Amino acid sequence: MADEILFELLHMEIVGHLQRSSQKDEQDQCIAKLESIGFRIGQSLAERFTRDCSRFKDELDTMKFVCKDFWNTVYKKQIDNLRTNHQGVYVLQDNRFRFLTHISSGKQYMEAAPKYLALPCGMIRGALANLGVNCVVTAEVSTMPACKFQIQIQRG
Amino acid sequence: MADEILFELLHMEIVGHLQRSSQKDEQDQCIAKLESIGFRIGQSLAERFTRDCSRFKDELDTMKFVCKDFWNTVYKKQIDNLRTNHQGVYVLQDNRFRFLTHISSGKQYMEAAPKYLALPCGMIRGALANLGVNCVVTAEVSTMPACKFQIQIQRG
Repeated sequence: MADEILFELLHMEIVGHLQRSSQKDEQDQCIAKLESIGFRIGQSLAERFTRDCSRFKDELDTMKFVCKDFWNTVYKKQIDNLRTNHQGVYVLQDNRFRFLTHISSGKQYMEAAPKYLALPCGMIRGALANLGVNCVVTAEVSTMPACKFQIQIQRG
Repeated sequence: MADEILFELLHMEIVGHLQRSSQKDEQDQCIAKLESIGFRIGQSLAERFTRDCSRFKDELDTMKFVCKDFWNTVYKKQIDNLRTNHQGVYVLQDNRFRFLTHISSGKQYMEAAPKYLALPCGMIRGALANLGVNCVVTAEVSTMPACKFQIQIQRG
């Protein structure tokens, strides 16, 4: 009996519910709500996971934690590729993102992708905020179920 | 890193979100929404879990599945007590219900309990519906975090 399926099913239902309860012109609001739910979950998770860790030595070290431990716990795999321009932009690529593997990969379904990426974006932002890194997180899909999360650090 | 916490955190956020977005006089609607989200999750879970099982031999056997395997997967423990009047009413008692353990057990917080029980009630109803048993499920808390789920079978 797979455990992780519970989180996945509940996530799908939330997305469905928020979408049904919002009007067509309120799609942005629906995405924003999912993002903020994700933010709080990410915060709590990072708080719990790092309780017994030593402090991360720098920003890159924090990103590696997100790509490995955090991703593994939430999505049962690690991020496949991490890139940075060393100027505050990080790109995390997941070649088989769990929340997209159930959507048909036909091009016509691409527009369904953003609503399944909002909560995950929020979770990254929440986790990093909890670890002292303020950022903006966006997601981009070119070929399903691959997905890129772009993290733009906000310097105080 | 605890896996199960993900489902728990997401559930808490959903309850919080639905409550914030509904007016005071719409509490029933909020409960109904949580119940219907739970119903669909319960259906999917039962479908997956019983795929490779042999057919249950009767209603009681189906209930035992819910009390043991289903409960264990979702809440990491089994139901502590199962009773029936042999006339279509089953009472499942959980002495330490996972979604209530985070709420203070003071009497003044009792009114917060129903909204954390709506999705679980829906999940039971959904799982049983998928297994061919139509029912109404209600929950009752007398002393937190103990909780009783009453299942009333609806005969065709």
